[in-house]
Amino acid sequence: MTHIKVINPNTALAMTASIGRCARAVASPSTTVTAVSPAMGPASIESHYDEALAVPGVLTEVAAGEREGVDAYVIACFGDPGLDAARELATGPVLGVAEAAMHAATLVGRGFSVVTTLSRTIGRAWDLAHRYGFAAACRGVHACDIPVLDLEDPSAREAVTALCAEAVERDGSDSIVLGCAGMADFCAGISRVTGVPVIDGVGAATRFAESLVALGLRTSTRGEYAAPPRKQYSGLLRDFTI
Amino acid sequence: MTHIKVINPNTALAMTASIGRCARAVASPSTTVTAVSPAMGPASIESHYDEALAVPGVLTEVAAGEREGVDAYVIACFGDPGLDAARELATGPVLGVAEAAMHAATLVGRGFSVVTTLSRTIGRAWDLAHRYGFAAACRGVHACDIPVLDLEDPSAREAVTALCAEAVERDGSDSIVLGCAGMADFCAGISRVTGVPVIDGVGAATRFAESLVALGLRTSTRGEYAAPPRKQYSGLLRDFTI
Amino acid sequence: MTHIKVINPNTALAMTASIGRCARAVASPSTTVTAVSPAMGPASIESHYDEALAVPGVLTEVAAGEREGVDAYVIACFGDPGLDAARELATGPVLGVAEAAMHAATLVGRGFSVVTTLSRTIGRAWDLAHRYGFAAACRGVHACDIPVLDLEDPSAREAVTALCAEAVERDGSDSIVLGCAGMADFCAGISRVTGVPVIDGVGAATRFAESLVALGLRTSTRGEYAAPPRKQYSGLLRDFTI
Amino acid sequence: MTHIKVINPNTALAMTASIGRCARAVASPSTTVTAVSPAMGPASIESHYDEALAVPGVLTEVAAGEREGVDAYVIACFGDPGLDAARELATGPVLGVAEAAMHAATLVGRGFSVVTTLSRTIGRAWDLAHRYGFAAACRGVHACDIPVLDLEDPSAREAVTALCAEAVERDGSDSIVLGCAGMADFCAGISRVTGVPVIDGVGAATRFAESLVALGLRTSTRGEYAAPPRKQYSGLLRDFTI
Amino acid sequence: MTHIKVINPNTALAMTASIGRCARAVASPSTTVTAVSPAMGPASIESHYDEALAVPGVLTEVAAGEREGVDAYVIACFGDPGLDAARELATGPVLGVAEAAMHAATLVGRGFSVVTTLSRTIGRAWDLAHRYGFAAACRGVHACDIPVLDLEDPSAREAVTALCAEAVERDGSDSIVLGCAGMADFCAGISRVTGVPVIDGVGAATRFAESLVALGLRTSTRGEYAAPPRKQYSGLLRDFTI
Amino acid sequence: MTHIKVINPNTALAMTASIGRCARAVASPSTTVTAVSPAMGPASIESHYDEALAVPGVLTEVAAGEREGVDAYVIACFGDPGLDAARELATGPVLGVAEAAMHAATLVGRGFSVVTTLSRTIGRAWDLAHRYGFAAACRGVHACDIPVLDLEDPSAREAVTALCAEAVERDGSDSIVLGCAGMADFCAGISRVTGVPVIDGVGAATRFAESLVALGLRTSTRGEYAAPPRKQYSGLLRDFTI
Repeated sequence: MTHIKVINPNTALAMTASIGRCARAVASPSTTVTAVSPAMGPASIESHYDEALAVPGVLTEVAAGEREGVDAYVIACFGDPGLDAARELATGPVLGVAEAAMHAATLVGRGFSVVTTLSRTIGRAWDLAHRYGFAAACRGVHACDIPVLDLEDPSAREAVTALCAEAVERDGSDSIVLGCAGMADFCAGISRVTGVPVIDGVGAATRFAESLVALGLRTSTRGEYAAPPRKQYSGLLRDFTI
Repeated sequence: MTHIKVINPNTALAMTASIGRCARAVASPSTTVTAVSPAMGPASIESHYDEALAVPGVLTEVAAGEREGVDAYVIACFGDPGLDAARELATGPVLGVAEAAMHAATLVGRGFSVVTTLSRTIGRAWDLAHRYGFAAACRGVHACDIPVLDLEDPSAREAVTALCAEAVERDGSDSIVLGCAGMADFCAGISRVTGVPVIDGVGAATRFAESLVALGLRTSTRGEYAAPPRKQYSGLLRDFTI
Repeated sequence: MTHIKVINPNTALAMTASIGRCARAVASPSTTVTAVSPAMGPASIESHYDEALAVPGVLTEVAAGEREGVDAYVIACFGDPGLDAARELATGPVLGVAEAAMHAATLVGRGFSVVTTLSRTIGRAWDLAHRYGFAAACRGVHACDIPVLDLEDPSAREAVTALCAEAVERDGSDSIVLGCAGMADFCAGISRVTGVPVIDGVGAATRFAESLVALGLRTSTRGEYAAPPRKQYSGLLRDFTI
Repeated sequence: MTHIKVINPNTALAMTASIGRCARAVASPSTTVTAVSPAMGPASIESHYDEALAVPGVLTEVAAGEREGVDAYVIACFGDPGLDAARELATGPVLGVAEAAMHAATLVGRGFSVVTTLSRTIGRAWDLAHRYGFAAACRGVHACDIPVLDLEDPSAREAVTALCAEAVERDGSDSIVLGCAGMADFCAGISRVTGVPVIDGVGAATRFAESLVALGLRTSTRGEYAAPPRKQYSGLLRDFTI
Repeated sequence: MTHIKVINPNTALAMTASIGRCARAVASPSTTVTAVSPAMGPASIESHYDEALAVPGVLTEVAAGEREGVDAYVIACFGDPGLDAARELATGPVLGVAEAAMHAATLVGRGFSVVTTLSRTIGRAWDLAHRYGFAAACRGVHACDIPVLDLEDPSAREAVTALCAEAVERDGSDSIVLGCAGMADFCAGISRVTGVPVIDGVGAATRFAESLVALGLRTSTRGEYAAPPRKQYSGLLRDFTI
Repeated sequence: MTHIKVINPNTALAMTASIGRCARAVASPSTTVTAVSPAMGPASIESHYDEALAVPGVLTEVAAGEREGVDAYVIACFGDPGLDAARELATGPVLGVAEAAMHAATLVGRGFSVVTTLSRTIGRAWDLAHRYGFAAACRGVHACDIPVLDLEDPSAREAVTALCAEAVERDGSDSIVLGCAGMADFCAGISRVTGVPVIDGVGAATRFAESLVALGLRTSTRGEYAAPPRKQYSGLLRDFTI
């Protein structure tokens, strides 16, 4: 039995539920998926500010997961907030959804387009593509300029689909990476319209996390990702002392 | 039931059997693994010449796999020979073991060392690291200068292990990628000695292939990986006409 | 009168005082420097975990600075924690000390060595060099493996100096960037021993921040660094709602 | 007397003859050019599959060339198929036409556009530009979507010329590389229309190969390009045993 | 008292005067700015040829500056001509205006557009962006195709402003670097129209040079920038013997 | 009859004669080689200062060559001084010896070591490798620290040879590029000792220049390398007015 904890870094519970469904839909029968939202954090993540403030909550959930015997973690926000710090805390693997989606895209094609929510997050998507080694494979990042929490709106699906079709054409790409965990439901529909693989990071991260566990692989503890040195944290963050 | 065909591009049947065992050891219960060696090809792959001549055999096996209803393929030689051509032929995903191992390494650490067989293959390993986007994550490629078919020799395991320990130190890396499908058995032992994750591409490719199938992802058919245009092949290769 | 707020992201007040002295020592007569430490945060920053938890405190100080009419900010920890988020909040420029030091080094030489505290932070230094465009100019990153709060120890200065001399030789570099705001006092001594420019980021960031103000330049508000969208933050972070 | 063997990797004999004429037109009087087509291989090369299957034939011709005392080889297909393996076999230099054309372009200008046949080969052209070091100098790759064997059609010349003119404008390039050995005849005409140097790889490779011979330079036998280790090849490929 | 010598490498004295005004407008009260034009050199710099011939005059001015006790130098032409050689001669820092402007742009935004004079200088701007580490931050280089000495024309300001607005849109950039020292006067106006920071290299270089002096930093004399070996120069250049 | 003018940018006439001999030794029978030294310039080139002051003399020789009907030019100093400006002036191709040597090295191997004179020129060699696209192929740059004009000394040959052997080992390279036009005579001897191709740029540039002429290729006049705009030059440089 593998236990994967999927952490939605924002506090929108409907989105957490939907992310959990997406993860469970692709997980192996022998995998348990727990989808959670931290008790502290922003209602949605649409800026570096939001991302920075989402991280303490994510880390609380990882620390709790360690006590619960979690085998692997997925950070279900396309900016992959807190990934490095979570890797220091967790004994099992930790994957970000942008990371997993970009990995998957390069396994099924030569170049992907990212379709994301707000224009202001385009830079972050490029930063991640660079960090993970996929700057050349990432052919373009496009924003639909629909706020995260409005993605449930029926018109959103249509707008995102149209943008995906346009992105593939303009970028000469052969797959699409959806740049928001809240778009997971759109995959099948967009794939039908565009004729290319459409990748939702939540699913990809869940399966890859499961795979790493099955392969007996954990985050390396040599150097950068060793457990953080114990020390004291002051003020509101006193609870984080380890 | 997912059917994964693992193709050992050389004709060393003992190695094929061992590769099959490694793949099965990590595959999900619901996955069938078939490990094969093409009828034509080199006894082992240790040069660009060998690699070039291994490819037609690999493609024959992919073509056969398509008739057999195979869901995904693994090319089990660290040079990933024929990967692009195989992707054109196959409807399901195709993964190379170097590709999968490097992907796995970047999911569990910041920088990996590759430990391979002959010095003359070092350039190929770097080429693949560049191609897959992992030129920065690849911290060093080291050769033990033991021919592929001598890896079964008991002294080989010791020499490879020592080289891995040295590589991690010298490169400041935090994981090891084993640069030959024939080294798969060494993983656990080397991990114990070095204290870092040791990745065998056969296992990684098998699990990732399975994951892509579960995620409903296939190689994109837009552009480069569309089915090859039909045409005639002359001479010995007449059978390859499609 | 230009007001520069130098934020030491950890809560070690002696270090904050020393950082303030370094900033004041190089600032123009017409500049006021305020050096602060957030009320919440880690005692020192030596991991991604520490860095992640330092950021909310840094942002509180920036938000306060906006109310106080601060003209520019310096984030005085070599990991430049919270730089992007701070830029979204502040109307004036925000500089990180790693950023400023690397910029300065490339203005006075062809290649620099970074000498930092713990080995586990080497990866972060490289990440920043990549992000700022200085991956090629950064010739090496070396750790003395002295914890941040032990840098005050007299033997530390000697050890750091020796490592700097060695780094210049080994890397073929022509300047040194000190990889911790707590090393600012060592500059002159190390420069005397090694014969190359030695750069402390606190001083560099203070002067460059002052320069940007004098040039009438502020962080662009077009796109990524526009003010973050207003929203609610839950739990401990409720105070961050904007 | 220098003997250069130009190998057209496909089996279209009219194209081989035309390639031979182009090579002879630029070769020194003291150079003998032999243009051949392998007995086995695809009728034209328009996919990774075709390329992979063209390679054994190319290698047969190189092996024969070694017995005939050939001084240098040109692989006359824009994908440069089998280049690495051929270098292992040959004692003299081996050049690909994409390689030679890109080298020539960077000697006469700052940035080139590649104009090729089918869209599906665009990725291969970029791969080669990256491999040879010309990713920055390559400003664009454009496909006319005319199959290789239809280039003889009078309308093809016009379409290719128009695309070249458009490419120079769009890419801001200052030279054109023709991305198919079958386009060699078009050079002069396109240069007249566009006003920029137009490079046919067959001619460039022939002259550069000749130059390397005159300079006494051969492929290095240290490491990667040493003669391949002897071994057995099974099945159809038995004849390749060395 | 800090003495900064701003060298306009061309011999257009009106431009030298205007450059001097721009430098003085941003310099600290305690800084003296001398703006000069060499006695030998081109009337304006619009080609590699012009740039090459401007350099001896620039070096004469640096050599004179050393005798005059100059603390730092600014080379006020966007191609940064003679920067490396000047660094060998000068004991204090030397900055180019392209260099300083690009550094400033990356401190206030994520990506800049360069707007320059003639199209033929676009390549040089990209070369400098690569050299300084800002190839990724430089999102586009655009030419207004107005000769340097016609920038004083009232219509020039309008044309340059319109091009800047277009560049920001097309490149998705968040700041503008003006690619000619003769455009310094346009900054404020363009910033008003485009809403993004507009950077004039003369001002930026002056303040950064001042900052380096205040920080006690000089060009490293280890290796490349050590004083040039003494030797004889023949012909017209006899005066340059050192 | 092809006329190639080889310009030694320094004024050491013995070196010019030897460079001329090297060029003639490899040129086609139908090629005339003229080797010249400008009337103005440094006795040898060992700094950016020397290089900057060598350029006007080089340009004088190119301008003279245009009147003499020269078909192509070689700039015979490893820093390739004045290459861009010379390309603007000349109607035929212009090649630098570093450029040509690096091109040749990548045609006969996977990675080269540069062995040069003074350590202070190492940075320049790397800059050129980056510019020409060979940063990855250049595995190391090593200095023997023998001044250019002492290379004639018998002991120099030995020292350079030993350094070459060491460089190949340390860098894992498979060819050597000699980093000074004054080392051309050493090629054969070093190749014998090291067993790898050793490339002298003078020979390579001469043959490649000849090849470009035979191929009907000239420097592109579209954009950057168009003839420089006419203008006046003041002072010592008045003669350069065009």
